Amino acid sequence: MEFKARDIASLLNGVVEGDPEAIVNDVSKIEEGKPRTLAFLSNPKYEHYLYTTGATIVLVNKDFVPAQPLSCTLIRVESAYESIAALLQMYEDMRYRPSGIEQPSFLHGEATIGETPYIGAFAYIGKGACLGKGVRIYPHVYVGENVRIGDNTVLYAGVKIYHDCVIGKNCTVHAGSVIGADGFGFAPSNGAYSKVPQIGNVVLEDGVEIGANTCIDRATMGSTVVRKGVKLDNLIQVGHNAVIGEHTVMAAQVGVAGTSKVGANCMIGGQAGIAGHIELGDGVKMAAQAGVGVDVAAGSIIMGAPAFDASKYQRSYVLFRKLPDLYGQIRELEKEIQTIKSK
Amino acid sequence: MEFKARDIASLLNGVVEGDPEAIVNDVSKIEEGKPRTLAFLSNPKYEHYLYTTGATIVLVNKDFVPAQPLSCTLIRVESAYESIAALLQMYEDMRYRPSGIEQPSFLHGEATIGETPYIGAFAYIGKGACLGKGVRIYPHVYVGENVRIGDNTVLYAGVKIYHDCVIGKNCTVHAGSVIGADGFGFAPSNGAYSKVPQIGNVVLEDGVEIGANTCIDRATMGSTVVRKGVKLDNLIQVGHNAVIGEHTVMAAQVGVAGTSKVGANCMIGGQAGIAGHIELGDGVKMAAQAGVGVDVAAGSIIMGAPAFDASKYQRSYVLFRKLPDLYGQIRELEKEIQTIKSK
Amino acid sequence: MEFKARDIASLLNGVVEGDPEAIVNDVSKIEEGKPRTLAFLSNPKYEHYLYTTGATIVLVNKDFVPAQPLSCTLIRVESAYESIAALLQMYEDMRYRPSGIEQPSFLHGEATIGETPYIGAFAYIGKGACLGKGVRIYPHVYVGENVRIGDNTVLYAGVKIYHDCVIGKNCTVHAGSVIGADGFGFAPSNGAYSKVPQIGNVVLEDGVEIGANTCIDRATMGSTVVRKGVKLDNLIQVGHNAVIGEHTVMAAQVGVAGTSKVGANCMIGGQAGIAGHIELGDGVKMAAQAGVGVDVAAGSIIMGAPAFDASKYQRSYVLFRKLPDLYGQIRELEKEIQTIKSK
Repeated sequence: MEFKARDIASLLNGVVEGDPEAIVNDVSKIEEGKPRTLAFLSNPKYEHYLYTTGATIVLVNKDFVPAQPLSCTLIRVESAYESIAALLQMYEDMRYRPSGIEQPSFLHGEATIGETPYIGAFAYIGKGACLGKGVRIYPHVYVGENVRIGDNTVLYAGVKIYHDCVIGKNCTVHAGSVIGADGFGFAPSNGAYSKVPQIGNVVLEDGVEIGANTCIDRATMGSTVVRKGVKLDNLIQVGHNAVIGEHTVMAAQVGVAGTSKVGANCMIGGQAGIAGHIELGDGVKMAAQAGVGVDVAAGSIIMGAPAFDASKYQRSYVLFRKLPDLYGQIRELEKEIQTIKSK
Repeated sequence: MEFKARDIASLLNGVVEGDPEAIVNDVSKIEEGKPRTLAFLSNPKYEHYLYTTGATIVLVNKDFVPAQPLSCTLIRVESAYESIAALLQMYEDMRYRPSGIEQPSFLHGEATIGETPYIGAFAYIGKGACLGKGVRIYPHVYVGENVRIGDNTVLYAGVKIYHDCVIGKNCTVHAGSVIGADGFGFAPSNGAYSKVPQIGNVVLEDGVEIGANTCIDRATMGSTVVRKGVKLDNLIQVGHNAVIGEHTVMAAQVGVAGTSKVGANCMIGGQAGIAGHIELGDGVKMAAQAGVGVDVAAGSIIMGAPAFDASKYQRSYVLFRKLPDLYGQIRELEKEIQTIKSK
Repeated sequence: MEFKARDIASLLNGVVEGDPEAIVNDVSKIEEGKPRTLAFLSNPKYEHYLYTTGATIVLVNKDFVPAQPLSCTLIRVESAYESIAALLQMYEDMRYRPSGIEQPSFLHGEATIGETPYIGAFAYIGKGACLGKGVRIYPHVYVGENVRIGDNTVLYAGVKIYHDCVIGKNCTVHAGSVIGADGFGFAPSNGAYSKVPQIGNVVLEDGVEIGANTCIDRATMGSTVVRKGVKLDNLIQVGHNAVIGEHTVMAAQVGVAGTSKVGANCMIGGQAGIAGHIELGDGVKMAAQAGVGVDVAAGSIIMGAPAFDASKYQRSYVLFRKLPDLYGQIRELEKEIQTIKSK
């Protein structure tokens, strides 16, 4: 599909500077800018790319003043960043989406499907499952018995939801994620382990997004809960009975062990680990690969494994790198003292 | 389903203290205790919740003496913990389970299926595969050529078992796990890599439980072996030709590289890493996020990356946190010596 | 299938030393060597196994001189290692492979399939997808709209490829991997997060092999690129807009965050983490569990988290282990100085 600079400007309430007939058919980053694409400049750090970009049209902030001559056409808008986000959304909305119920799929006679669904081929909707309006279920999705799924939620290909779990409205779960597998509960018994049945469930509240191949285990009893607006990346582990607070974000490969509670608005870096039975307050920030085994006060910024205050960690780590020097200094001091003593 | 206190007491050989007609329809934790649920008190640490719990009935040990008045009904049993485990199992056993062979599914003409199976819709059973009695194969499971699966084993939705692998009796594999993908074997060849074919298999012995989205690679030659009673959590990696000893447990996101041997009755914490070609003795305990690249003696408790004795690690780590102080002390000593020397 | 020593020798252009009628029906490792199997000896470290191995036939290098009497039959070849690799490949090529298009499968009317495909039951090929010649698509694979797949590529069971992604020729993707899920892009907005649409794609160039349950996210705009000959192990995360250079290998559970660029011919150890927006030069080696948040020069060998030069890291770590001793030495020095001062 092609767009002229004049049409985009009109859509975004912007002003063209250059060729209003310039045509684009894709978007690109300003630093990679290919011909016939639209790029944007928001962060001043990237300004130098503007003068050499191959992009045909570039969105800039209203008050931007170029320091050099330009070969591209500009569109001046209120906020280049928000405008590009809006355009990406329009672009996304325009792309082809399958709809209706493809065959073969398996809809149990006692399942309920809301209006205007998409159910992909080979999707499985179990007994007693209840799907809201506008739900999109991609191929190879498994929805177990009595699962409830809220309006406009999207489950991508191969998502598996075990029995009795509850998924809110406007959630997105990416391919291969598993919601509601058994928590890791085994009781030692004569040198072996016997399984503790896991009869709870998982509850994802509204507006949650889960990445690909992430696992959220069902509770032993009660619920493992992922609160409103939480965003989890790929390959994350959330153990049984954990609670993840509202609007918390976690990068890929984080692990949250069983029965722990993570506060609201936390930011957890990739590959970080949170041990079981602890509590992180609201707004905690954990660095990538950090590991924590004790409660953490709200607002803390932590690093290391075991993790502590990030700026203190960094000071210690600088000296860890210098340990051979420190060791030499101690040796030197010992010699000096021997010299002094021998006098 | 509803139960009266008198019925539960009779089932558990217990004694009601309070209302024998009290009714529950679910179980809950004592600290979350909701009305019309059954909770239990085993750990004295939780006793204070008993006096305020909303649970209608609470199981307690026979000899428990309440310190305050109670609003719930008690059932006194020999062991509250074992009774609740028994009840959870009954509860689990009562829940709806699909059975029979759902359609469409793919059963190769040369596959063999034991008595009373469950084969979910869209399950694929390949040529020459052989399934024992009472096996439950959920939807979207792939069972490759010549795979053998023992009696009463359960493969949850979307499990993938590659050709020639052997799964024991009474095993459970959770959704999305992959058993028998190629080991990571490539031979350097002129600045690139050529693949070393992986012609071995994976053997899971009896009573093994594997979490969701875990990967156990096939051996280059011979077998990758997971011994009797092993319990692996979610998102774990087990490399080609590794051997995991009997009744060892591993928390989520652990990685075991190729050709390593982990002893029996080990406990490996979440996100720990075990390098290739090493051996861990029996009963080794590794802390979460620990990493080990050398052999580890039986019974060791290790921490850190590279890991060493956990109590020594903790002592070193305390001083790591104090490195800025130590650095200050060394600076101070240097000054003092200068002062002494200048006299 | 059975082979005589004389036939194998003839196949490999080798010379039999022992019984030319000796029969094998499998291959094994020399240290595990079972009767009726063929083993090989290449690394002199394993020579002692030769004298006790149960293997019936052993491949050795042409010039090998045994130090003790042997009970097995030898076949002398130019290179035992290359010969065994060649035999493994023949063995692999001989095994049963499904072919044709199994039913039920879902091929969109607007999809294109090349010659001699294998399409497993329950595979889903979306609208506008285009598959090359000799492609093998196992059961439960999902190929989204407009995906292009090159000749002779193999997608194992349950692989999910999102819309618009491009997979090269001679690639292998193992079970459960997800190519092209949304990048983790959210813009903070009034204490919550709003999604940034991810309209780019993933490009895997030719000869790439991806392990099981690995995730490679689509770009926000443009492409996440995995270059020619790259080998990624299981459970790896590659973030949006990352670029992985030619012939780089990564062990299991590595994480590469968004927009980072990894050079060619790098070797990244298991569970290592690469932060976002950084660049690793060609030939970088990262130790297992290392973590890096800054650019890394070509050819560097790094370790630790945050990572730095591996040999320096090891020196510091030796002293980290000795920190209690160092602390004692500092205490001792303080006492000595007090003693000196008091005189």
